[in-house]
Amino acid sequence: MALIVQKFGGTSVGDVDRIRNVAKRVLKTQAQGHQVVVVVSAMAGETNRLVDLANKISRDPDSREYDQLVSTGEQVTIALLALAIQDLGGKARSFLGHQVRITTDSAFAKARIKSIDASIIHEELAKGCVVVNAGFQGIDPDGNITTLGRGGSDTTAVAIAAALKAECEIYTDVDGIYTADPRIVPEAKKLDKISYEEMLELASLGAKVLQIRSVEMAMKFKVPLWVKTSFSDAEGTVVIQEDQDMEKIVVSGVSADKNEAKIAVRRLADRPGIASQLFESLAASNINVDMIIQNLSADGFTDLTFTVPKADLKGALRIAEGVGKEIGAQKIESDDKIAKVSIVGVGMRSHSGVAAKMFTALAKEKINIQMISTSEIKISVVVDEKEADKAVRALHKVFIG
Amino acid sequence: MALIVQKFGGTSVGDVDRIRNVAKRVLKTQAQGHQVVVVVSAMAGETNRLVDLANKISRDPDSREYDQLVSTGEQVTIALLALAIQDLGGKARSFLGHQVRITTDSAFAKARIKSIDASIIHEELAKGCVVVNAGFQGIDPDGNITTLGRGGSDTTAVAIAAALKAECEIYTDVDGIYTADPRIVPEAKKLDKISYEEMLELASLGAKVLQIRSVEMAMKFKVPLWVKTSFSDAEGTVVIQEDQDMEKIVVSGVSADKNEAKIAVRRLADRPGIASQLFESLAASNINVDMIIQNLSADGFTDLTFTVPKADLKGALRIAEGVGKEIGAQKIESDDKIAKVSIVGVGMRSHSGVAAKMFTALAKEKINIQMISTSEIKISVVVDEKEADKAVRALHKVFIG
Repeated sequence: MALIVQKFGGTSVGDVDRIRNVAKRVLKTQAQGHQVVVVVSAMAGETNRLVDLANKISRDPDSREYDQLVSTGEQVTIALLALAIQDLGGKARSFLGHQVRITTDSAFAKARIKSIDASIIHEELAKGCVVVNAGFQGIDPDGNITTLGRGGSDTTAVAIAAALKAECEIYTDVDGIYTADPRIVPEAKKLDKISYEEMLELASLGAKVLQIRSVEMAMKFKVPLWVKTSFSDAEGTVVIQEDQDMEKIVVSGVSADKNEAKIAVRRLADRPGIASQLFESLAASNINVDMIIQNLSADGFTDLTFTVPKADLKGALRIAEGVGKEIGAQKIESDDKIAKVSIVGVGMRSHSGVAAKMFTALAKEKINIQMISTSEIKISVVVDEKEADKAVRALHKVFIG
Repeated sequence: MALIVQKFGGTSVGDVDRIRNVAKRVLKTQAQGHQVVVVVSAMAGETNRLVDLANKISRDPDSREYDQLVSTGEQVTIALLALAIQDLGGKARSFLGHQVRITTDSAFAKARIKSIDASIIHEELAKGCVVVNAGFQGIDPDGNITTLGRGGSDTTAVAIAAALKAECEIYTDVDGIYTADPRIVPEAKKLDKISYEEMLELASLGAKVLQIRSVEMAMKFKVPLWVKTSFSDAEGTVVIQEDQDMEKIVVSGVSADKNEAKIAVRRLADRPGIASQLFESLAASNINVDMIIQNLSADGFTDLTFTVPKADLKGALRIAEGVGKEIGAQKIESDDKIAKVSIVGVGMRSHSGVAAKMFTALAKEKINIQMISTSEIKISVVVDEKEADKAVRALHKVFIG
């Protein structure tokens, strides 16, 4: 008998029939001898409906009241799912964030979970109940309702699994994690397992199956995290701690991220503090900088190139131009027709020559590399957006087959 | 400076524009120097939407989950109203039942309030905030969300007013309590004030402006209860403790209730225990009996006549026929074309001849009286349904003018 936390997103509970299907799946798991805790999101469309109401009534909605409002979406779903389970003859009880004391900080709309009182959940499980928890929400020390921000229900599920020392299954509309996007690489294979570190790199690279915070939390508390589809009984992919086996595989996945743009600040005097002045201004405007490359030229000047989300390009350019003047840059250039292509794998740590093999593969396809950035388990290159898919296919062929 | 609790029903907060109007009214009251606590219902239609979902998913919805579900309606409204007040430049903070510790018993869907923690509300008022409370909901000792049943938001408002020692204003779509239904009696006058006892009699007689439980609670805690319209600035009617002045007015209101039916059990042997057998069976089936009349005939037989809600007539007849056989009744008759016409007034206590005057007025109009029932401050007669409006007009003319 295992203790399993199952999380279902908004599409999986989008209407009465789908909620009933989730109820059946949950009861099937219970009938196999497991204890089941369920975490659900709001019904698809419901959160948007509530956000629209807030925006109609207020030009700048206060975030405490916003959380009070949008947290009702999950409350509706947990009650309906509990009713559906009961209607099928099962035992179920629904719980809100404050009822299982999911305490968070007071950062409304982006709160972080501090603790969960597992005792109430254990009590209900011992009675043979399916425990249905509202995702996305918690309560701060003053009793205010908080929400966790986008993808927060994944985080709730992992946090509850951590508190219960349970496994966590995230049900979504894909049946697992693939070695590449199957729409780009038809030969892409589903992975049976992947390490937390690799998943983090892939998630941040645009493989948007799992919310990155939930993977971080799973890694921190060593929660085995399954990605499964709610539309079939396929096995899915498990995200777990790195093991011996994994190290033999050099590259686990190839991904492309087309959501970034590049800014180059040309011919700066190479003085200490130049870079910090620029990046502090960007940080102050909440612009997330991803890759940063600095080249020193022979004549004492330097080029600074960095990438930002495409949506922030305008703002970042304005800042770069302002700061550029102060620090004496000769020229600011930008390009939003780029893609970041990456290979990820824990095996890189113990295998040499991976970068060389990557660059050769790209060169063979005549793909020009604009920027390079590496971490312990990842190599990323920036290429022309038009070449991205070709690059992914070439790298997949060379490293995965 | 006064402390005022204002309650707005579902129609008054039915859409974004109406919520904004409520926000303006609340801020106007605050600008007059008062501290304001607001209690709101779910947006019109929202509770029905949620109940429909529950009934689609479950043949017999569990009442705990039902309360978890429907309580979201008020949660949406309080957040939106707080946002609207803030958008108009005011300070506001919304609170759920569990956040101001409106504790109730665990009778889901019909819970009764046990206590309210006024300290949180006082704290927020002291900061200049409008405190916006969810009506209809509370929390039981185990942390489960409970709801108070139909009209529960009125009860929440009065309970909060009692806890704060404040006045309570119930905003509705009529502008006060009238001496009779103006659709039947065009000369009907709006009352400036009415006693709790009179209001209770009128409420139970079908003047459905105030929820009867809220009037009972207002009476118990001596909360002055105003009935006002949210569509104008008219003064409304205040429901208060009886005073010297009131006793001079013999009849405060005339009402007709067309929702009852009559059952007559004919020629029973007049033995002890006969009546209790019948009415215990009715009570066991949750059928509410209103008037009961027993006449003893000269030959030792008795006729038992009683009224029940029209909706329960079938069930009541089945029971009366079953029990009738056992206790040897000769005949069971029923009539659902009746109306109960009543005059209500605390002045009756000190004025004699009121009943005689009432019967004479009806006789003059050739209206036949089928049943009579009296209390200290009320006289009710059952007449043919077709005669009800004529009876109300005649009595209004004689007693009120």
